[in-house]
Amino acid sequence: DNCRCAQCVNQDTLQRNFDTFAIPKDISPTEISAKAEGVDILWSDSHRSHYTWSWLRSNVQSTQPKELLNQESLWGAAISSAPPEVDFENVMSSGSSTGMAELTSKIRQYGFCFVVNSPKTPEDTEKLLESIGPIRNTHYGGFYDFIPDLALADTAYTNLALPAHTDTTYFTEPAGLQAFHLLSHTPPTNKPASEVLGGQSLLVDGFYAAETLRRESPEDFEILRSVKLPWHASGNQGVAIAPDMAYPVIEVSGDKLHRIRWNNDDRGVVPLDVDVDAWYEAARKWNAILKRKDHEYWFQLEPGRVLIFDNWRVLHGRSAFEGLRRICGAYISRDDFVSRWKLTNFPREDVIASNMQLR
Amino acid sequence: DNCRCAQCVNQDTLQRNFDTFAIPKDISPTEISAKAEGVDILWSDSHRSHYTWSWLRSNVQSTQPKELLNQESLWGAAISSAPPEVDFENVMSSGSSTGMAELTSKIRQYGFCFVVNSPKTPEDTEKLLESIGPIRNTHYGGFYDFIPDLALADTAYTNLALPAHTDTTYFTEPAGLQAFHLLSHTPPTNKPASEVLGGQSLLVDGFYAAETLRRESPEDFEILRSVKLPWHASGNQGVAIAPDMAYPVIEVSGDKLHRIRWNNDDRGVVPLDVDVDAWYEAARKWNAILKRKDHEYWFQLEPGRVLIFDNWRVLHGRSAFEGLRRICGAYISRDDFVSRWKLTNFPREDVIASNMQLR
Repeated sequence: DNCRCAQCVNQDTLQRNFDTFAIPKDISPTEISAKAEGVDILWSDSHRSHYTWSWLRSNVQSTQPKELLNQESLWGAAISSAPPEVDFENVMSSGSSTGMAELTSKIRQYGFCFVVNSPKTPEDTEKLLESIGPIRNTHYGGFYDFIPDLALADTAYTNLALPAHTDTTYFTEPAGLQAFHLLSHTPPTNKPASEVLGGQSLLVDGFYAAETLRRESPEDFEILRSVKLPWHASGNQGVAIAPDMAYPVIEVSGDKLHRIRWNNDDRGVVPLDVDVDAWYEAARKWNAILKRKDHEYWFQLEPGRVLIFDNWRVLHGRSAFEGLRRICGAYISRDDFVSRWKLTNFPREDVIASNMQLR
Repeated sequence: DNCRCAQCVNQDTLQRNFDTFAIPKDISPTEISAKAEGVDILWSDSHRSHYTWSWLRSNVQSTQPKELLNQESLWGAAISSAPPEVDFENVMSSGSSTGMAELTSKIRQYGFCFVVNSPKTPEDTEKLLESIGPIRNTHYGGFYDFIPDLALADTAYTNLALPAHTDTTYFTEPAGLQAFHLLSHTPPTNKPASEVLGGQSLLVDGFYAAETLRRESPEDFEILRSVKLPWHASGNQGVAIAPDMAYPVIEVSGDKLHRIRWNNDDRGVVPLDVDVDAWYEAARKWNAILKRKDHEYWFQLEPGRVLIFDNWRVLHGRSAFEGLRRICGAYISRDDFVSRWKLTNFPREDVIASNMQLR
């Protein structure tokens, strides 16, 4: 079933080229010979397989598969002194993938990265995002370029603050990457510039906050990890979206943090067959950690600085602002982003070996 | 936290309009009065809530939330005598959602449906699919309209058979709906028409096959449900996609079948820390059930008959064919499809109540 020979594996697609279930159940090796490059096996059905030492090492030697190394760095407010940045020109360079490798690697490490010196147009922003992976269509559309309707300028002047949250908690698979590019900010004309609210942006490292919770209050961490909640999007007449099942606020894979899902406004009813008081108590602690000054990274979006972040890890929010802001951006699926990260940072054969033995 | 009043719930988006964690921890009801339409509560912080009897019934009375009823019908080869069909005109009627309700309801019931009397153009097919939900972009693109390159006609003349499989097993969330519309089939000119291979299409109800396995061999069902496997897409130079973690062939939610993931050619290595022989034995039985004549539904794709099926439940395949086939189609995310199904078949308030207490 795992033969790697050119007859058994389509060399273009690396898919199996044969019917696993046509292999005799009682197949056994007739002849095993160790060579310099690997092992040759002659099977009882007279098929001949060759396994390289490197394939055997990664698949057989240990039951712990090799993982592609991701240096995860948790961060708090101090990240503001040196936030991760990559230059637009480097990312978009057609001759080299070094810039893309750096961008995706920083997003993996910190959960976000700015692409600086970006052209201040929606077209260039869209090209940048599509170079990472296909843009995800939702009921809101795909790539968006949002200009508040000038006719509504009066009511649009005040734009409310949003607490830190993740987007699309109501999807089975929430959006992977999310991007914002502030193309322009026009203050209202009837106020002195010094009094205008600027609309600060907020990022919080959800993995750092979750580790804080786990350290300070392991029982509360366990409650947010184990209690599965309903989430919903009911905001448009034609749409009433919910995930395929209930999901907890904190998802782990083994001991490792895997995904944060948090938008308290879109949360359904806490199920009555769990200890409801204990859940609220845990959520209260979680909410307080998210609002600690040393966990919050506040900054100003600027034209030319595209923000891209991992919506499975990093929460975002903003303070109130006045005037008109034009922002463009999009969602990118996480599978496509992770594929881009792997292939620009590791040898292709290591990536495929790792994918084929993923846990 | 669950107050339904117009001050607490944004009446447009049905999102919470207040900070859950600003509610005093020791809040308690000061006054409870039962009215004809529901219950009024005056809280100790002097906020006044009103809960309708219907809201209380669905959220409090039992811990078993009301589910929107989906009459699931499992099927085998006999479905060929009366496959589910809906007329294109009815689905696309702008005045009524009855046709869309019927289409989505049949896909929920049977896992597939034909849209008959469809205009034989890619444009109309795309409009039909977008009326269900946004089209999902992947590394293959969005809506596709595939015409084999005429310059390659010689090598494209033989098009191999594909055994029953589900698509995109390598995504964290595999494609929800998949659609095929055969726009034309031009046989090769150098053969009498009677000898030309037509390319029969195959559907297999994965839920029916899984129930057969569960009945005939519960231990094998349990192995395919519990052993998590790696899946991968490595077919293009720039792409090496894998899901966020390993997933089993059969996923359940409680006792109910939830999702089938099966493309043996894209499967990675069976993990060595499980009973590998037992897994292969179970997969062999599963594969044999999928190939039983009474589980297979064979038919001919035809221009004007758009096939739409649930890729989480129904496997598809085809026999070999000759000549040139032009096929268009797309993926639609399952969340969007399920939203469309719910809103066209049930009252909006029942849908939202159900979403807010999903398990």
